[in-house]
Amino acid sequence: MIDSIAIDMDGVIADIELHTLNWYQKKCNVVIHPEDIIGLPQLEALPEKDAVWKFLHTPGFFRTLPPVKGAIDAVRRLTRKYDIFIVSSAMEFPHSLNEKYEWLQEHFPFISWRKLIFCGEKNRITADVLIDDYPKNLRSFKGIPLLFSAMHNMHETNYTRLHNWENAVQVIECL
Amino acid sequence: MIDSIAIDMDGVIADIELHTLNWYQKKCNVVIHPEDIIGLPQLEALPEKDAVWKFLHTPGFFRTLPPVKGAIDAVRRLTRKYDIFIVSSAMEFPHSLNEKYEWLQEHFPFISWRKLIFCGEKNRITADVLIDDYPKNLRSFKGIPLLFSAMHNMHETNYTRLHNWENAVQVIECL
Repeated sequence: MIDSIAIDMDGVIADIELHTLNWYQKKCNVVIHPEDIIGLPQLEALPEKDAVWKFLHTPGFFRTLPPVKGAIDAVRRLTRKYDIFIVSSAMEFPHSLNEKYEWLQEHFPFISWRKLIFCGEKNRITADVLIDDYPKNLRSFKGIPLLFSAMHNMHETNYTRLHNWENAVQVIECL
Repeated sequence: MIDSIAIDMDGVIADIELHTLNWYQKKCNVVIHPEDIIGLPQLEALPEKDAVWKFLHTPGFFRTLPPVKGAIDAVRRLTRKYDIFIVSSAMEFPHSLNEKYEWLQEHFPFISWRKLIFCGEKNRITADVLIDDYPKNLRSFKGIPLLFSAMHNMHETNYTRLHNWENAVQVIECL
């Protein structure tokens, strides 16, 4: 029986993939489709190689991420049954700290500040389950690792894959 | 043999006690000595009951905290032998997130962003040792809890007490 679920932000509840492609189209006038970047590392997914890195360092980028489709309702449902907390590797982009906090207040106001963790590495965080789009974060995790689908992780086969939030709730309820 | 040590910020490496008394003297022109507030809860330590709360919500308060005496040298020494990371309950005061990050960059630049954790509750953090001035944080900790002395915890007798950073290094080296 599981009790606690740690949920990553970018790529899991915050749609960094869609946002990156939208920003690239707006700033460089080049349309890239999600299927064009299947299996590519996130930082090297765009033709202009430092574009993603620049976006990640641009004030406002994290604050304006759209929520992942279905994430708000699904996480709200899960909070009724499980101890849900949000774990984000925010320290690499320190200007994102306040942006991420405000973003959570706006989109996930039902999650208390008590349940938020902004960290560098995630290897010091314990929970029964971790939902993350990065295999490197799942690798060192001691509980049940669940991989949330993203274009960059499509070739990963080592973890139970959550295709979207509807599927995520189904999988979690069977644990 | 211990390997990882989680270190709290306020009251352990950042001297919030001294800073609070100094701010109170500057803003209210009343001198309170540390020995006057022995055993008093931090939030109720000053004659004007909401003074500490106001300070905690004032931009710049966390950014200008003086380091605790001996903390920088002691932590630098410990990083040579142990996996040191900083764990701060910063989420209650979200404006402190960037201030705390900048403060660490200034005073503890030898600690990588990878080793920083800003959270709400600390009960999801694992390490071999936790150094904290709040018994409530030590209570739920699964490793070795060490209480860093502060005026507000002087009546606490349930934990090994670290009287200062010189003593802290001695105690840690005997674990």
